[in-house]
Amino acid sequence: MLTVDQLQTIFCEKLDAYKFPQNPSALYQPVEYILSLGGKRIRPVLLMAAYNLYKEEVDYVFEAGMAIEVFHNFSLLHDDIMDQADIRRGQTTVHVKYDENTAILSGDVMLIYAYRFLEKYPEDLVELTRLFTNTSIEVCEGQRLDMDFETQEEVEIASYLKMIELKTSVAIAASLAMGGILAKASSEDQKHLYEFGRNLGIAFQIQDDLLDTFGTEALLGKKIGGDILQKKKTYLYLKSLELLNKEEAARLKAIFRMEKLGPDEVQEVKKLYKTAHVDVHAQELKLVYQQLATSHLAAVSVSTDKKQMLSDLSVKLLNRNI
Amino acid sequence: MLTVDQLQTIFCEKLDAYKFPQNPSALYQPVEYILSLGGKRIRPVLLMAAYNLYKEEVDYVFEAGMAIEVFHNFSLLHDDIMDQADIRRGQTTVHVKYDENTAILSGDVMLIYAYRFLEKYPEDLVELTRLFTNTSIEVCEGQRLDMDFETQEEVEIASYLKMIELKTSVAIAASLAMGGILAKASSEDQKHLYEFGRNLGIAFQIQDDLLDTFGTEALLGKKIGGDILQKKKTYLYLKSLELLNKEEAARLKAIFRMEKLGPDEVQEVKKLYKTAHVDVHAQELKLVYQQLATSHLAAVSVSTDKKQMLSDLSVKLLNRNI
Repeated sequence: MLTVDQLQTIFCEKLDAYKFPQNPSALYQPVEYILSLGGKRIRPVLLMAAYNLYKEEVDYVFEAGMAIEVFHNFSLLHDDIMDQADIRRGQTTVHVKYDENTAILSGDVMLIYAYRFLEKYPEDLVELTRLFTNTSIEVCEGQRLDMDFETQEEVEIASYLKMIELKTSVAIAASLAMGGILAKASSEDQKHLYEFGRNLGIAFQIQDDLLDTFGTEALLGKKIGGDILQKKKTYLYLKSLELLNKEEAARLKAIFRMEKLGPDEVQEVKKLYKTAHVDVHAQELKLVYQQLATSHLAAVSVSTDKKQMLSDLSVKLLNRNI
Repeated sequence: MLTVDQLQTIFCEKLDAYKFPQNPSALYQPVEYILSLGGKRIRPVLLMAAYNLYKEEVDYVFEAGMAIEVFHNFSLLHDDIMDQADIRRGQTTVHVKYDENTAILSGDVMLIYAYRFLEKYPEDLVELTRLFTNTSIEVCEGQRLDMDFETQEEVEIASYLKMIELKTSVAIAASLAMGGILAKASSEDQKHLYEFGRNLGIAFQIQDDLLDTFGTEALLGKKIGGDILQKKKTYLYLKSLELLNKEEAARLKAIFRMEKLGPDEVQEVKKLYKTAHVDVHAQELKLVYQQLATSHLAAVSVSTDKKQMLSDLSVKLLNRNI
């Protein structure tokens, strides 16, 4: 069994050594650029970890990890255009560094390359591409719902949870299930790995919402309160509307209807969230998903010590203090 | 054997009956919109025609035709954003009718859907996706070269031909080869079908360049001289630079360096092209590719009468008078 750090090192070394074509350079340079910006490589590491439950040679699944990681970065690249985001991981985003047309086209080729990486596995290709295609469609649907919510006055909590499931969790779930498919795990195990990832992803996103509002800049790696500034209808916002009294809820809604928010409004929204004790509710909801994740991992039919790494990894992901 | 018109009718009826998901509607409505704008459906018709050389039940390859047609429309959709084009087939383009973010995301989901359509063929999936992925990457590379040429002072004729091959011909070639793969044609036949399509595509693009400058509006379905107005470095432009005397060539270059061209410059460029007799050269080059296409079709190991339809179709495509 390899540790999380070992898996990460193996993947990153192979990624660094991987070369996209040289030409046309204006197509492939932005691809290498965005992949060079780093990140935790959480999806390929989970894929390798799931594979490693059953098999030793994790090198074998590098290309599958690349498919997931390149897809993930494609979605970041196109999302950054849509969000008009200037900075990604502390560096200039692709559409700013190059231009928007370049970002669209290089993103497109990344999405196609994700499928090229899967060609390594002809024996499992039907199963892999079915899962991969399904997941990719769901990620687009999640991104669309996220955009729709921006202009939608009323959003239900269930819809919000569905959105984060599609936008974030299914790709994490699919990474784990792909590891299972490639290791020839039973379909039961594949299902449990998928559900472990899906619930882990939702718990992680709820934690992310919490961190964005109540975390520290050091922990988050970016400014606190970004979601509020962007008037994001997160779980914190939606649940607060339920929990607050009529006047407070009306005030919260009124702030989110303002043209542009400043630091004073961010403080006021945080105070309203605290009044609602929504952070406690969010922590509880996170725990529900965390426990669901744990129970699915427990049901995977390999020995507990083999599963220790995935268990450690989920604890690590879900225990960034706020 | 079915006729071209019959194949087109079969495909269009099935396309009209096909339903994308209802939700999120802001994701899938633009997909249905662009597919409803029509077009000759040349790629799926070629795919069905190639299949029909060997097998009767052309309904079987509808989904493969959809993969190619949806991919083609994805590329039009994203190209229209990049070109800031307002009109496509006489209708508002997606990014104008909706907005740019919608066009990016709905284009992305179309590209993924192309792969979903291929799932119908598990037995041939390895071969189909390998060809499809390769082709899609080449189309992106062609689009990138096309963009690069805009700002590039010197473009070689060979590079231009490579660009149109990648941007246009390989998808036509792949459509024919996919028909062959699905019909279990020999790999020799698949190769000849591919080469038939590749050369046909190049000939077709050269004709398209000719029509854009020397055609009639009725024939072209849009304004004549668009390529000149956009200062496109087509074969006509590049070859004229070779054929004209020094002063004339310098004048042509000077016009293409102007900020914005008007009807007077279009007329002057057309006159320079005529002086160079570049239309004759282009016709000859088109004929070379047309003959190459014909020879590859001749080499396909089915009876001549079965191949009549593909032969008729290529004549029809390549004999729009200029």
